[in-house]
Amino acid sequence: MKGKKTNLRDADCAIARALQATGDWWSLLIVRDAIAGKQRFGEFQKSLGLAKNILSTRLKKLVEEGIFRIEPDEESRRTHRYVLTPKGEGLGIILIAFWQWGEGACFKPGELKDTMVDRVKGLPLARLQLSAKDGRTLGPREYRRVEKGAHGRPQPGRRPPKRQAVRPVQ
Amino acid sequence: MKGKKTNLRDADCAIARALQATGDWWSLLIVRDAIAGKQRFGEFQKSLGLAKNILSTRLKKLVEEGIFRIEPDEESRRTHRYVLTPKGEGLGIILIAFWQWGEGACFKPGELKDTMVDRVKGLPLARLQLSAKDGRTLGPREYRRVEKGAHGRPQPGRRPPKRQAVRPVQ
Repeated sequence: MKGKKTNLRDADCAIARALQATGDWWSLLIVRDAIAGKQRFGEFQKSLGLAKNILSTRLKKLVEEGIFRIEPDEESRRTHRYVLTPKGEGLGIILIAFWQWGEGACFKPGELKDTMVDRVKGLPLARLQLSAKDGRTLGPREYRRVEKGAHGRPQPGRRPPKRQAVRPVQ
Repeated sequence: MKGKKTNLRDADCAIARALQATGDWWSLLIVRDAIAGKQRFGEFQKSLGLAKNILSTRLKKLVEEGIFRIEPDEESRRTHRYVLTPKGEGLGIILIAFWQWGEGACFKPGELKDTMVDRVKGLPLARLQLSAKDGRTLGPREYRRVEKGAHGRPQPGRRPPKRQAVRPVQ
């Protein structure tokens, strides 16, 4: 997987670099637990049931990537705390995107017992919605990548993709 | 990684199951390319520079997970097309969440040449925003997981997390 990491770190695509920086699925589950309030090695290990060496490697990478920073542990001199940085906190919205997709795609009706609510009023979260800057809501794939400065120039005759339609290769 | 897959498939967390279903980073990059219009094995391979056997395994898993379906290729009898299902199209919003996070977190100012625009008017996408059902916008980690039916019951005295604050373990 070494080649993959090298490639993605230098990729010209923000999705590819973001995937490289966040690491594998375990890393995102560590961030999930951190958002829920966990901060200590033992807490992550208990929650994830992960081998110590694997968890240790993941945490080290997340610190190197600036997603966590290390803070002293007021409760123990022998340990420290992993605290999400603002960069790490920004991953929270990616986790909600996964949660909302997973809710519908990976569970039978009634199977998922829990839901996500806001921390103040305890109300359910609204569904994340893709929209353009002028406020129009968009379908989940009604976007394309263009060079900066080229936006605002619609492609003549271009329409949003229809499901099942054969599209030419871009 | 076999243990991981088994664990996450049965997880009671929609994030964990979604991560399991989408597979590794390569799988999300395949979906990225499919949203951009690619459908054929050779097109994915050219875009990703991935070994044939690795790409083949990923595509097979994505079909098994119901993210792609296989369709005949009108242009060739020897090949077929991988077409995103509605479930697969739903991943588009996860990719935009990664793109928007990566834009700020993984590039120097001015380094990223491209941007994401909507397909009809070519306007930039709005930033994905977490919000509660009553419309209040939320910070990226101002959510928590509760049992369904328990929402609407705020935790007395509970406030949104402050950065750098030491939080009790939940």
